[in-house]
Amino acid sequence: MTKISSLALVEKPDTPFLAIDKNVMLRNIERMRKHIGSRSDSVTIRPHFKTLRTLDAAPYLLSDQSQPITVSTLKEAEVLAAVGYSNMTYAVGIAAHKLPRVQALLAQGVDCRIILDNQAQVTAVNDFCQQTQCTIAVMIELDCDGHRGGIRADDAELITLARQLQDGAAEFRGVLTHAGESYHCHDAQQLRQAAQAEVDAARLASQRLRDQGIACAEVSVGSTPTALSDVDLRGISEVRAGVYTLFDLVMYGIGVCQLADIAARVVTTVIGHNAERGWLLTDAGWMALSSDRGSAATWQDHGYGLVADSAGNLLQGLQVSQANQEHGVITRTDGKPLNIEDFAIGTRLQILPNHACATMAMHDHYQVFDDQNRHQIWSRIRGW
Amino acid sequence: MTKISSLALVEKPDTPFLAIDKNVMLRNIERMRKHIGSRSDSVTIRPHFKTLRTLDAAPYLLSDQSQPITVSTLKEAEVLAAVGYSNMTYAVGIAAHKLPRVQALLAQGVDCRIILDNQAQVTAVNDFCQQTQCTIAVMIELDCDGHRGGIRADDAELITLARQLQDGAAEFRGVLTHAGESYHCHDAQQLRQAAQAEVDAARLASQRLRDQGIACAEVSVGSTPTALSDVDLRGISEVRAGVYTLFDLVMYGIGVCQLADIAARVVTTVIGHNAERGWLLTDAGWMALSSDRGSAATWQDHGYGLVADSAGNLLQGLQVSQANQEHGVITRTDGKPLNIEDFAIGTRLQILPNHACATMAMHDHYQVFDDQNRHQIWSRIRGW
Repeated sequence: MTKISSLALVEKPDTPFLAIDKNVMLRNIERMRKHIGSRSDSVTIRPHFKTLRTLDAAPYLLSDQSQPITVSTLKEAEVLAAVGYSNMTYAVGIAAHKLPRVQALLAQGVDCRIILDNQAQVTAVNDFCQQTQCTIAVMIELDCDGHRGGIRADDAELITLARQLQDGAAEFRGVLTHAGESYHCHDAQQLRQAAQAEVDAARLASQRLRDQGIACAEVSVGSTPTALSDVDLRGISEVRAGVYTLFDLVMYGIGVCQLADIAARVVTTVIGHNAERGWLLTDAGWMALSSDRGSAATWQDHGYGLVADSAGNLLQGLQVSQANQEHGVITRTDGKPLNIEDFAIGTRLQILPNHACATMAMHDHYQVFDDQNRHQIWSRIRGW
Repeated sequence: MTKISSLALVEKPDTPFLAIDKNVMLRNIERMRKHIGSRSDSVTIRPHFKTLRTLDAAPYLLSDQSQPITVSTLKEAEVLAAVGYSNMTYAVGIAAHKLPRVQALLAQGVDCRIILDNQAQVTAVNDFCQQTQCTIAVMIELDCDGHRGGIRADDAELITLARQLQDGAAEFRGVLTHAGESYHCHDAQQLRQAAQAEVDAARLASQRLRDQGIACAEVSVGSTPTALSDVDLRGISEVRAGVYTLFDLVMYGIGVCQLADIAARVVTTVIGHNAERGWLLTDAGWMALSSDRGSAATWQDHGYGLVADSAGNLLQGLQVSQANQEHGVITRTDGKPLNIEDFAIGTRLQILPNHACATMAMHDHYQVFDDQNRHQIWSRIRGW
């Protein structure tokens, strides 16, 4: 029987709530640390904060406040900076109107890199730095797989922009890429190819820049699936990843974790039965689970999540197949009615999420349990 | 050219943010008021708070604090009660462990109804009321369309449960149904049938109860699509609806509003181009838009939302076709590359949401504008 952890204290808070199994989270963090350590002595991990987004988790991600972290919003950076964290990459293409907030972070002594991939952004950043007499460190985003944004590593534009930054009032710091398409890999070979493409793009870009006499101090790659691969990391300075801390059904579908590695779940109560159809109705709808249907793109669609009992036993053949605002509908995946007598009204269940980043985002607080069933409440940083 | 409202102040806050056109919202609220008023003198509207979930909006929904409101969480009820609102229905099947919170609301003088549809819940509520010497008002949930939960109006169980409540320590207050399937209607005839089925179920149930000598003070129906229909409301005491306040692309797809009636939108900035594919990259991903893909079930799938410029002109043939955590990807719906030169980096756009309830849920604050471009910030009530 597939077993996720039992959380004896799941009876405590009102449902629905987001629970983290802290020991599983710590094991996941240690796994990544060991994995990267085994591949290279010189590559650092720059964990992506966007999954957990809580100050309470930061000490587990970083050994001290000067260690590198990635953020998806300036809000995260500001909250981290306020308590002393000082080494950040804001990994979403910069909008010019956000530059005063970056400047304020620099003024606090934070080494905050921004990223960009086009001429308009380079001009805006150089102009802003000149006008305000500050020096913002910039990474150029590379496109390694056609996923979203970035410049191809072999594009002449890369050299042009880097030189403009180097010669302008900003500081050119390096290159950064993200193998977003790795989320659509279906087997180990595809995954390895995605990881290889990511490091190849970063290496090629940095080499081309150095060949032109442009220093490229940081060479950053990463996504959880590619970070957990074993391609050669020579020439790479750091690896970014976020969802490895908690894992989820998408990562399980890609094959980079087991169900027992999923550290976050939504605890819910059975509040009704549809006896005619053989459905369970619960109090965890998309407000608690998110509307993310990420597993639909993997080898197995798990609806809005898989179901375990409160003791941690995975209930094979069940899933959350519908989610309304405050209602979830649990059905059998084979379409037959489930035996509702097995699930009395009031029964607590645990739902494993499709996409941990999305499910965490629905919760202001996380209920955190360890293997002694000690209980903490962690608060999420919200907004932009 | 289809036009939604221009929000001149969209240049003000940092993007992404949630904007409400207050005048459109007020027009929507007035439309429902007039519509129900024209159908019956005796039917009241019990607005569903779950869409807006902000105390700032409550005075526009209710003429005074004793007027009826529906909530989707006890958290909403508690926040409303703290400032004096006193007439609520918590319209999600009750879990026994939530009863002390209901009791606390009663102790504050709030007339807070709960809903249920099964024997275990009736026993739990009667027992709780007896043990704690309180009287909780209970509505029995009816199933009018096989959507989710509830008891069929012709089921013998209805009488059994109502009598147990009447004879027990709780108070039986009436019946409530919700035509959830109306969200899947494709034409006016289906919509009318859904509305008819909803009132038919409520009327039949209340009649059967009265025939058995069981008082049925409240007979509650509602969903935005059915509330806006024109079926005969005789025998109905109240209509519930929520998303009519803001409307969205699902409601547009069902045919109960125009695009210009959609009062909520996410304001975003163009932060990149994928020139090769002809895509715009923006800073509104699913963290700002939600992952809701509700329009996929209507006659026209609008991806993660339709796109208007900051002046309010709908950009025909564009949609948000992909959403990552903090990135949206805007493409042409015909698959051809769009002319990225028309959308300089830094351009602000407005995204019309699939499902307003879901998009609002991603934001702690709403930026509210009126036709004088006066600006307010409303705070959302969060959690359960």
